[in-house]
Parts: sequence; structure tokens; C-alpha cells
Amino acid sequence: MEQRPVSRVVIIGTGLIGTSIGCDLSAAGYAVHLRDHKISHARVAAGLGAGTIEPPISADVDLVVVAVPPGAIADLVVHSLQIYPNATVTDVGSVKAGVLDALWQRDVDLGRYVGSHPMAGSHHSGPMTAHRELFVDRTWVVTPHRRSAAESVERVRAAVRACRARELIMDVDDHDAAVARVSHLPHLMSVLVAGHLTQVPERDLMLAGQGLRDVTRIAGSDPELWEQILGANSNAVLEELRDVQDQLGLLIKSVEAAHASGDLRSQLERGVAGIRKIGGKHGAALVRYRQVVVAIPDSPGALARLFADVSAAGVNVEDISIEHDPVREIGYLALSVAPEHADALVETMLSHGWTVS
Amino acid sequence: MEQRPVSRVVIIGTGLIGTSIGCDLSAAGYAVHLRDHKISHARVAAGLGAGTIEPPISADVDLVVVAVPPGAIADLVVHSLQIYPNATVTDVGSVKAGVLDALWQRDVDLGRYVGSHPMAGSHHSGPMTAHRELFVDRTWVVTPHRRSAAESVERVRAAVRACRARELIMDVDDHDAAVARVSHLPHLMSVLVAGHLTQVPERDLMLAGQGLRDVTRIAGSDPELWEQILGANSNAVLEELRDVQDQLGLLIKSVEAAHASGDLRSQLERGVAGIRKIGGKHGAALVRYRQVVVAIPDSPGALARLFADVSAAGVNVEDISIEHDPVREIGYLALSVAPEHADALVETMLSHGWTVS
Repeated sequence: MEQRPVSRVVIIGTGLIGTSIGCDLSAAGYAVHLRDHKISHARVAAGLGAGTIEPPISADVDLVVVAVPPGAIADLVVHSLQIYPNATVTDVGSVKAGVLDALWQRDVDLGRYVGSHPMAGSHHSGPMTAHRELFVDRTWVVTPHRRSAAESVERVRAAVRACRARELIMDVDDHDAAVARVSHLPHLMSVLVAGHLTQVPERDLMLAGQGLRDVTRIAGSDPELWEQILGANSNAVLEELRDVQDQLGLLIKSVEAAHASGDLRSQLERGVAGIRKIGGKHGAALVRYRQVVVAIPDSPGALARLFADVSAAGVNVEDISIEHDPVREIGYLALSVAPEHADALVETMLSHGWTVS
Repeated sequence: MEQRPVSRVVIIGTGLIGTSIGCDLSAAGYAVHLRDHKISHARVAAGLGAGTIEPPISADVDLVVVAVPPGAIADLVVHSLQIYPNATVTDVGSVKAGVLDALWQRDVDLGRYVGSHPMAGSHHSGPMTAHRELFVDRTWVVTPHRRSAAESVERVRAAVRACRARELIMDVDDHDAAVARVSHLPHLMSVLVAGHLTQVPERDLMLAGQGLRDVTRIAGSDPELWEQILGANSNAVLEELRDVQDQLGLLIKSVEAAHASGDLRSQLERGVAGIRKIGGKHGAALVRYRQVVVAIPDSPGALARLFADVSAAGVNVEDISIEHDPVREIGYLALSVAPEHADALVETMLSHGWTVS
């Protein structure tokens, strides 16, 4: 490969992911050529600013991004390595080992292939969302293999950075095990819960709340796509499924012995521990606030004023709990607020005559 | 019991549920007395307008609402039947058979007990949200038993209506089976997925998306409370767990045979079917829109205008798909919009010169 700036890209597949990449790379100065077996799809992507539908001169192409459904990836990667002799080829499929295994069995220049996987968009669809900042601050895994040329890896990483994603280099098998754990297993568990609803009497669903909706949401994703994903990662997925099968067996034993052992409690607590590990809104947030503690006044009428004053402080109260002094039989309101707002709230409450401890 | 309008209520337990009921019943003209073993909690509830902390004359009480954690319900129902001789007693626990079984073994006037269960609030906490319209249009199950007096059932139903909830009369065992299916089983599956994360390498979680957060959210709920709920409903829960255990076994077989059978696909489709049954945002919505189909113009530049005109129409586009005419090699944009906006969108697009079919 001769040395020149990476600049000419072919994107194969103009769905949400392919079109979004095209928009980002075009904005970053790449010359992007769009291909789709349905020309009207490529035309819509071009209309959104993702690139041109004019074909490039094959030898000029530096990078090919294969953004098609999982079952079609391997063949299109092989095809691309063959017809674009100077191009690095990557794909954006959510399972990496199968593609690589398929390539080892073909007579292709493996050094020019580097897999990748952007963590974005699987539950969106349609090109209308494509031009938004889909990859900004999302993890984008790059999975070099032992034959990958350093220059090829660098080309893919540069494209990832141009999409403003967070690049993460991983081994192919580590990647596939990771998505089995944090994506494919949760998907199948959601499918199990949602599927179970098919045998539930209609009236029972009047008792359903937001929790059921949350647990089952991802089970609504395209079965055809997921059949391909799971089929491509079946070994890693099976390992997780069998582990959960063991855990389910233990859980059933715990519920059977609910009154006789603390096992159920520890399994429930294990779930809370798992959530804390995810971080973000419902993990780290648990410890992110500062508490402002106000004495609860003796007269009930005063409490309404207290809440009004808290409101008027213009500070967003994330949680409230009541703390109790069993000896003096008085209580305290603990107001949880973002650390940067705590001082302002204390000041407001003091200025209105409340006792803040 | 003498006939007079139900008007005097005692609420035992001033957490989110008890306080919210107090606010609603007070607003509806009931005289509400609040009790809590922590007086400062009752005082906060009173300050929010849920009632008074002054004790009533026992014989004057028409209705007692026991709103305490599951493990304390049966004893407080018995206690209330004993000290309020003219009162109907209800509870708001999420499992009904255990309380009733406990009452059958005591020397109490069972005719004055009618269980109930409002579908609200389990993942909120703190009294601050209590005064909001917590029960409006939420299902509130009332579970009479064969000894319940008609007047007692009517008193509970009147209180449910005063909270502006949707009342639903159910048999006790039917209720417990229903919550096992739509609430307790999904909770435990969420716990399994979240618990599994405890054994996942830290780095894998960088690949986690919103789907994992959704599936695991409810697993973060209070383990102590859930231990009590599941313990109280263990028989019904075990039946659902064992069914899901069977389904998981089938799923594992399907993934093992992914390339050889269509079983995996049908299990994924069963999940989609289950979700459709829930209705609401991610169920019924799938069929609730009308499609406006616009021909995709030949020149790529025109597409940007098309999207701009769609935007300018001020109509919220719920989904977009591209339809393809393989013979003429042209395409159509199918815009999904709420039925009541479809005509306005068609008119706007026509007036801008687009071809709408």
C-alpha cells in the first residue's frame, strides 16, 4: 500500500448505521461513496449528506465500511477485499469471530481486514435519525486480529475518531463474550419474559406496570436480525445462558425455601450489586447527591411552608427521606440534591428560618 | 353496622402509598386520621395534607387502610378489626392470599375485611411525590372473599373511586397469580440478569447500552421489601418460574441448533407477540399510525428539501421507512404519523409540489 492520507471511503449498506457513518465522515472531510443493493436507499442517504452515489475508481478507495445485516457481512467483506485492492475493509457487525473465521477460509488479503462494532442504534430504525450525532461518546470497539496490518488498524481507528466515538481495542473473542454478556443474554431474558406473556390471561395485564414494560422493551426488536446475531454468536451466548440456567435453578430453590433461609434475600441483593456495576443514572446516582437535613417543625402547618420554601429555592430535589430521632420523638427531612446545589439550598432554608443540621 | 355515610378513615402507615391515599381521601371530603409507628412520618404526611395526627374515637371509624410493608400487614389488620368495632378494614399489600389465610386462623370479624391492591408507586419513594395524583387512571384491584360483607366491599370501592383509580374486582387467588405473572416473575428475571453482571469483567460493561439498563432497572428495588413480597406469594411465583425454566431449556436447545432449525426465530417472535399484548407505547403503537407515502425524487439535492418540508409541516413523524420499486428503480418514503395529522401532512407535501401516493 502506498502512503497517502486516508480520504476515500465506500460505505456498503445505507441503513441507520451506514448512513450515520457517512454523514460523520463526510463532515470530517472524507470523500464518501454510498452503495446499497436498493439504489433508492442510497439516494436517501445521499440526500441526508452521507455521501455520493457515484461509484469511485476502485484503486483509489482507502477504506470500505460494510454496514449490512450480520448474515451478509462475510461475503461482502471478501468481495470488497477483492475489488478494492488498496482498501482497508471493516464491518460494523455486532459479532466478530464468525466473520473472521469465514475470512480465514477464503483466499483474501486478511491484513487489510479489521473488524469493528459501534455501540449505537440497534433499536432505532429509518434514516431520519441517521444524521444526528449517533456515535458521539458511544463506545466503538475495534477488533484487530493477528494478521491485521498496523496501517489498516490505524485507518479504522481514525474513522472511529472522526465519528467522535470512544474507541476501545478488544480481542475478537473477548468482544464476542462481552456482547453475549451485556447484550445478547439480556435480550434473550427479555424475550423469555415477553414470550411468557403470550400465555397470560388478558385481564392480568391490567395489573402490569412500568417495570414489565422496561424488562420486555428490547424483546420487540426485529426477530430476523436477532436470529442472525444470536446464530453468529451461539457459543458465547450458550455459555451465558447455561450460567443463568444454573442461577435460575438456585433461585427456584430459594423461593421454595423462602421462609427457611436467607438465600432469596442474597440473590435479590446480588441483583442490586449488579446494577451498581453498570453505573450511570441508576447506579452511580445512588451516591452522587449531597444531603441537606432540615428539622421537621412541631406544627403540621409549618411543613407545607417548608416544602414551599424548598420549591422556591429552585433546586431540584432528587430524593427525600425522613430521619427519625426515637429518643426526642422528632424527625428530620433529608433532602438529596446535586452537590453543586447543596450550599444554595442550605442558605435559602436558613434565611427562611429553618433549622438545618 | 348502622347505616351512615362513610366518612372517617384511619390510615396506618404513612409511606408513599398511605400518604397519597390520605391526600386523595382528604380532598374528597373524608376525615382522615394518620398513624405511623414513627410519629415524625405521620407528621410529614399531615403537613402534606394527608390528614390529621389526632386519634379518632374508635367507634366512629368507618374505614381503616393498612399501608405497611407486607410482613406487618396481617397483624395490623387483626389489630384494626379488634379496636375499630364498626370499621371496614382494607390493606394495600401486593399479595392477598397470605393475609386472608392468616385472618381465617384468628378470631376476628372477617366480614369487615376486604383486601385491595393499588398498582402504583412501588419504585418511587419518599413523601415528596405523595401528594401528586398517584392513582389517577391506575388499576386498583379490590379482592372480596366469600365472607366479605357487601357494605364493606362498597366502602373500599368508594375509597378507590375517591382516589380516581380504575377499580377492578378480582378473586384473591386470581390476583396473586396475576401479579406473579406480570410483576413478580419479571422482577426475578431482572434480578437474574442484574445478578449475572456481578461476574462480568468490568470492561465488558463499556459495551452496555440502554437495553441492559431497561432490563435490569427494577432489580434495583429494595431487597428487603421484595423478599417479603415473594415470600408471601411463593406458590404462584414458583409456578411461573418453573414455566420459564422450561422455556429457558427450550431456548438453549434452539440456540444450540440455531443453524438447523427455525425454533430460535419462533421464540424471538413469541417475545414480540407478548409485547404486543401489553399495549401502550411499544405495543399498540405499532399499528396506530397512518402512512403518508411520498415519491423519492431523482435528484439527491431534492431530498434535503423534502425532509425540510416534512419538518416545516409541524407534524411529528413517528417512523420513516423506504419502500422500493425494484422494476422502476425508484423509491418511496413512507412517513408514519398519528392518524389525525395524516391529512395535514398530505396537504402540505402536495402544496410543496411533492408526489404523494
